Amino acid sequence: MAKLALVGLVAIAQAGGMAADVQVGVVMGSDSDWPTMVKAVEVLEEFGVSYEAKVVSAHRTPDLLMEYAGSAMERGLKCIIAGAGGAAHLPGMIAASTIVPVLGVPVRSKALSGMDSLLSIVQMPKGIPVATFAIGEAGAANAGLSAVSILANGDEGLRDKLLKFRDDQRDTVLAKTLPPED
Amino acid sequence: MAKLALVGLVAIAQAGGMAADVQVGVVMGSDSDWPTMVKAVEVLEEFGVSYEAKVVSAHRTPDLLMEYAGSAMERGLKCIIAGAGGAAHLPGMIAASTIVPVLGVPVRSKALSGMDSLLSIVQMPKGIPVATFAIGEAGAANAGLSAVSILANGDEGLRDKLLKFRDDQRDTVLAKTLPPED
Amino acid sequence: MAKLALVGLVAIAQAGGMAADVQVGVVMGSDSDWPTMVKAVEVLEEFGVSYEAKVVSAHRTPDLLMEYAGSAMERGLKCIIAGAGGAAHLPGMIAASTIVPVLGVPVRSKALSGMDSLLSIVQMPKGIPVATFAIGEAGAANAGLSAVSILANGDEGLRDKLLKFRDDQRDTVLAKTLPPED
Amino acid sequence: MAKLALVGLVAIAQAGGMAADVQVGVVMGSDSDWPTMVKAVEVLEEFGVSYEAKVVSAHRTPDLLMEYAGSAMERGLKCIIAGAGGAAHLPGMIAASTIVPVLGVPVRSKALSGMDSLLSIVQMPKGIPVATFAIGEAGAANAGLSAVSILANGDEGLRDKLLKFRDDQRDTVLAKTLPPED
Amino acid sequence: MAKLALVGLVAIAQAGGMAADVQVGVVMGSDSDWPTMVKAVEVLEEFGVSYEAKVVSAHRTPDLLMEYAGSAMERGLKCIIAGAGGAAHLPGMIAASTIVPVLGVPVRSKALSGMDSLLSIVQMPKGIPVATFAIGEAGAANAGLSAVSILANGDEGLRDKLLKFRDDQRDTVLAKTLPPED
Amino acid sequence: MAKLALVGLVAIAQAGGMAADVQVGVVMGSDSDWPTMVKAVEVLEEFGVSYEAKVVSAHRTPDLLMEYAGSAMERGLKCIIAGAGGAAHLPGMIAASTIVPVLGVPVRSKALSGMDSLLSIVQMPKGIPVATFAIGEAGAANAGLSAVSILANGDEGLRDKLLKFRDDQRDTVLAKTLPPED
Amino acid sequence: MAKLALVGLVAIAQAGGMAADVQVGVVMGSDSDWPTMVKAVEVLEEFGVSYEAKVVSAHRTPDLLMEYAGSAMERGLKCIIAGAGGAAHLPGMIAASTIVPVLGVPVRSKALSGMDSLLSIVQMPKGIPVATFAIGEAGAANAGLSAVSILANGDEGLRDKLLKFRDDQRDTVLAKTLPPED
Amino acid sequence: MAKLALVGLVAIAQAGGMAADVQVGVVMGSDSDWPTMVKAVEVLEEFGVSYEAKVVSAHRTPDLLMEYAGSAMERGLKCIIAGAGGAAHLPGMIAASTIVPVLGVPVRSKALSGMDSLLSIVQMPKGIPVATFAIGEAGAANAGLSAVSILANGDEGLRDKLLKFRDDQRDTVLAKTLPPED
Repeated sequence: MAKLALVGLVAIAQAGGMAADVQVGVVMGSDSDWPTMVKAVEVLEEFGVSYEAKVVSAHRTPDLLMEYAGSAMERGLKCIIAGAGGAAHLPGMIAASTIVPVLGVPVRSKALSGMDSLLSIVQMPKGIPVATFAIGEAGAANAGLSAVSILANGDEGLRDKLLKFRDDQRDTVLAKTLPPED
Repeated sequence: MAKLALVGLVAIAQAGGMAADVQVGVVMGSDSDWPTMVKAVEVLEEFGVSYEAKVVSAHRTPDLLMEYAGSAMERGLKCIIAGAGGAAHLPGMIAASTIVPVLGVPVRSKALSGMDSLLSIVQMPKGIPVATFAIGEAGAANAGLSAVSILANGDEGLRDKLLKFRDDQRDTVLAKTLPPED
Repeated sequence: MAKLALVGLVAIAQAGGMAADVQVGVVMGSDSDWPTMVKAVEVLEEFGVSYEAKVVSAHRTPDLLMEYAGSAMERGLKCIIAGAGGAAHLPGMIAASTIVPVLGVPVRSKALSGMDSLLSIVQMPKGIPVATFAIGEAGAANAGLSAVSILANGDEGLRDKLLKFRDDQRDTVLAKTLPPED
Repeated sequence: MAKLALVGLVAIAQAGGMAADVQVGVVMGSDSDWPTMVKAVEVLEEFGVSYEAKVVSAHRTPDLLMEYAGSAMERGLKCIIAGAGGAAHLPGMIAASTIVPVLGVPVRSKALSGMDSLLSIVQMPKGIPVATFAIGEAGAANAGLSAVSILANGDEGLRDKLLKFRDDQRDTVLAKTLPPED
Repeated sequence: MAKLALVGLVAIAQAGGMAADVQVGVVMGSDSDWPTMVKAVEVLEEFGVSYEAKVVSAHRTPDLLMEYAGSAMERGLKCIIAGAGGAAHLPGMIAASTIVPVLGVPVRSKALSGMDSLLSIVQMPKGIPVATFAIGEAGAANAGLSAVSILANGDEGLRDKLLKFRDDQRDTVLAKTLPPED
Repeated sequence: MAKLALVGLVAIAQAGGMAADVQVGVVMGSDSDWPTMVKAVEVLEEFGVSYEAKVVSAHRTPDLLMEYAGSAMERGLKCIIAGAGGAAHLPGMIAASTIVPVLGVPVRSKALSGMDSLLSIVQMPKGIPVATFAIGEAGAANAGLSAVSILANGDEGLRDKLLKFRDDQRDTVLAKTLPPED
Repeated sequence: MAKLALVGLVAIAQAGGMAADVQVGVVMGSDSDWPTMVKAVEVLEEFGVSYEAKVVSAHRTPDLLMEYAGSAMERGLKCIIAGAGGAAHLPGMIAASTIVPVLGVPVRSKALSGMDSLLSIVQMPKGIPVATFAIGEAGAANAGLSAVSILANGDEGLRDKLLKFRDDQRDTVLAKTLPPED
Repeated sequence: MAKLALVGLVAIAQAGGMAADVQVGVVMGSDSDWPTMVKAVEVLEEFGVSYEAKVVSAHRTPDLLMEYAGSAMERGLKCIIAGAGGAAHLPGMIAASTIVPVLGVPVRSKALSGMDSLLSIVQMPKGIPVATFAIGEAGAANAGLSAVSILANGDEGLRDKLLKFRDDQRDTVLAKTLPPED
């Protein structure tokens, strides 16, 4: 993680006061989810999207959860990425207390490899949506990209960056040779 | 359900004011869970345990959930039976806001037959326990029996009733002939 | 479906020419997915969000898929809801050809109850995100609500409608009595 | 496990004679379940709850099982925590011979990661309840906490300890910073 | 089931006294398992193998289970067919108390279609074997056939009947035409 | 199935003598698999591919299986479509005795919905390939189409028919309107 | 495996000629199954049961399979233990060609941990029974014990050995202390 | 991989221009799939079948996919082997744009061990067939063998090689001794 500059917005956010212009909240049930959720953070950094990253536990800090979700809209968050594992209630409970779009990331669990996390997040009842992504790091990265695409609806600069990201991604694949080089 | 007298405690509980001496709270995420959860209620009625039955939705009424769970101990509840289906967050979120024992019932879901409900309830992280029972009606009835056994720890009369219940149950099996008489 | 007025935008969209101001595209792999996907459509109608609904099959009309996804951004779509069942490739392939947010709905399949649809949609590799919702009707409705919440980021009127929707939903739960009245 | 003092009650219990005032029995199908089940023991120690820990195998020592379960109530046990893996019959068979609350812990199995253990424990038929917890160490710890909460119904001191435990747990989460420190 | 004569051995067995020369015990956890387990009984009848059929519940009549299994060898049983559903402990617990071969039949369960029954029966730990068959009626019939093949080891007449059964079965398949006639 | 003319090749094949110029063999473990496997037959009929349809049971007629598979190449079969359910051994055992391409169809099973059939067919060890298709009717139809595409490698007429089939299929989708008409 | 004497019966069996008085055949689909299947062999050795161990592949040596199974009865085998992994057809195909009891052992597979092996073996259709045991080493050992119990039906000496084995097993458990000693 | 000569056809194919007489295309979603897919390549090399190997990503290079599949027939490919993991859309999307037989290989995925890959590939809807093989290396090798058997329909030399391959494979098994030698 050497190349990820966690200075700036995150530091401010963690310092207790919330940053003024944060667009995306990234929350996770435990700091042990960080190695997964950092993939979302890296995407947001790459696209220059302001964010804050916080540990919010549905089960151990329900009041914080309610407060965080409850104030999200007025604080100007445009979406919230929430990751958790096992009986993962964080994304759904965040969604229960805000109308800001919630993107859920099932963190891989020890015994059931994240199948429990996935079902706990994706199988929400009608009325409270959680947009769910793949189990683990790919899902976290894609939640980041999805957040960017949501913001891009109102931001032409981001749209251009996304198009370029896609082009680069395509070009990387096109340049692949087999057998792989290293 | 003709033979179940829902008069008395339940009626009072539903009337808004909570009954004074309720020992067990029975909550469910939706009134569509009632055909399952009534099996818990029937057990409590059978053993003469006072209870209240309420719809509390983790996702649609998070504030009610917090309030219900948060006041459970001081209101004297000895345990809470919570049933929900799909991404079932109710039992875990109740447990997050009270130290009263929480018994979770995975209600059978349409697409995944309750496997999602089960994993969403049972796979709680360390720190917030939810005692989980079988998917569907058997689980609801057993949550009721487990509640009775918890209360019986401090109530010799209930212990005797439980012992008699077990004896009767055994005798019913012993009296079975094959093929079944139906 | 008698109470759903499919006049207007949809009719125009189906007529070949695409409506001028469509905000949300709703596509599905087969018209047999309609009973599921109509739940998304009903939400969009309820919130007054303009949309178009089309059958686009990843496997049987790949060219149409490419064309649809490829032109989505310039046509002004703000998000695309895509539903499919079994080896459900539609949402992922739409997402592969556009940067517009894609919301995937796993339609319940015959043999595996939609577990195949869910995994085919949610387990996308890093780089191409598909926001996935629950299997079946609940997922379709929630994809609709998620679309509304994405649009609401730039539309205060929608935000107010969403807040009211949540309030109504909460009040409906609060008004429930047990046993259910019907 | 250096910091866990297994002196006292456990030593006495293992010595053949059962301790006089044991409140919670902790049994497991094999001593290979110890690394999981010790998490329950640690919780009981932390809360100062008296307990005994024993290997009781449903399959290899059925008579011991019957004797253990059959005498639990008169010996004054307030609940029994039972852990086993694979075709895990111990918790259910203990429950079959006592009305003392039984808390089941699915120990992670080699081939199926504890999914077999979980289903063997949680899917009990109507009439004999086993309160089930998560697969593995989290489940064992939570079974311990649930036992404490059951005892706390009749013990204000334990209630206070539980409330403090929850407060500490919350504060630990609130103090987390991201990225994690070590 | 009109064509199955349940006279004779079974009637005697059910009458409390156990028949003198019973070779195979057929036990099930509940009389609701009968429609499945009768398929084993039909096979035994077809091969003229003496048997007894009884409801023995691991959970509701553990003492009967112990007594039944404990006396099986001296009563001359050559094998025991045991069927149960859900957290199916009957076959394993019978096997725990006898060295007579135990054949387990996973009865199809409501929520999980017998996957729970299968894992609860087949995943026995080293030391106590339960020979397990398919979920449901096919498994019950095959448990019957397996019992016959075990007895046939010491009974040439049964061997001949089994060979003829296989020949007839083969001939039935060879005589099939497509499309099927009815 | 009134519109399917089973005259001709099939009738001859079933009559015991095998038709001279049969290109595709369609075998199934039981005539109860016919409603599924007829979907493969219908495709072959539609494309004018000569075929034979037979019940061959891996378990009940292993000799027939060996003979059928063993003579397939010299009889000129270009591929064999084999369908079976549950512990489905037919496709794999056919493949074990011939180098003719084998296409396996997992027939939906009662308890496990064909997941057992699928895994029993697709998870073949290295060395003996079985090309596997979807569970149930879709898989049977696609096995038929795959057989046609294999034959089309050496038959320009078939290639043209396949191209037309695809065009028609595409056009059918393109002509769909929503809501569906009937 | 240093303490297992593979001299004698096995050596003879492997030498091509089959031993005269072999009671149990142990076959496996590949020599990579040996580390699992040796657990069955060890049990047979421990009980002094004569056996032979052979690699017989359903898919790569179907003729050998037919010959082996077809001659089992006349060669005097009292049962056959067959282990295989993945799409495991060996036990079922052995059973298809003999009336000697067949005991199946699902060997743990790489991708699916033996769930495919288990379903491929246990889900046999009505008519051809395979007695199935747990995935992996425990299952292999138990297949060995089940074979011993089948033989014990006609061998009082073996019965005594089995009773002693169970007593020893029980005593080992009874002697366990917690925490485990090493 | 030292013994695999990747000279010749592959080198040419990778060089951008496609080799003139390539019979089999081997494509994969990522070069991280190479260690799996090389098993298919090794089989093709062993049988002297000309092939090309390319990274084609359904999600990151959809245009390349369309072009590759769209030109396959006229370029003379006789079949295409396509491998991918997770929400694996490559095989199905290739099949959507060509009538050349497509053989799908589910690459083992991190969280779900390839169960997601398998279902995403095998559960294709009626109309677009993908012949699917086992998860991982065995499946890749078998896809290679299946490709050879398809080509062998029109190539007697290949048929002979396949027969010899099978003979050798059988002889290798027949030569196995137990315990395994190394």
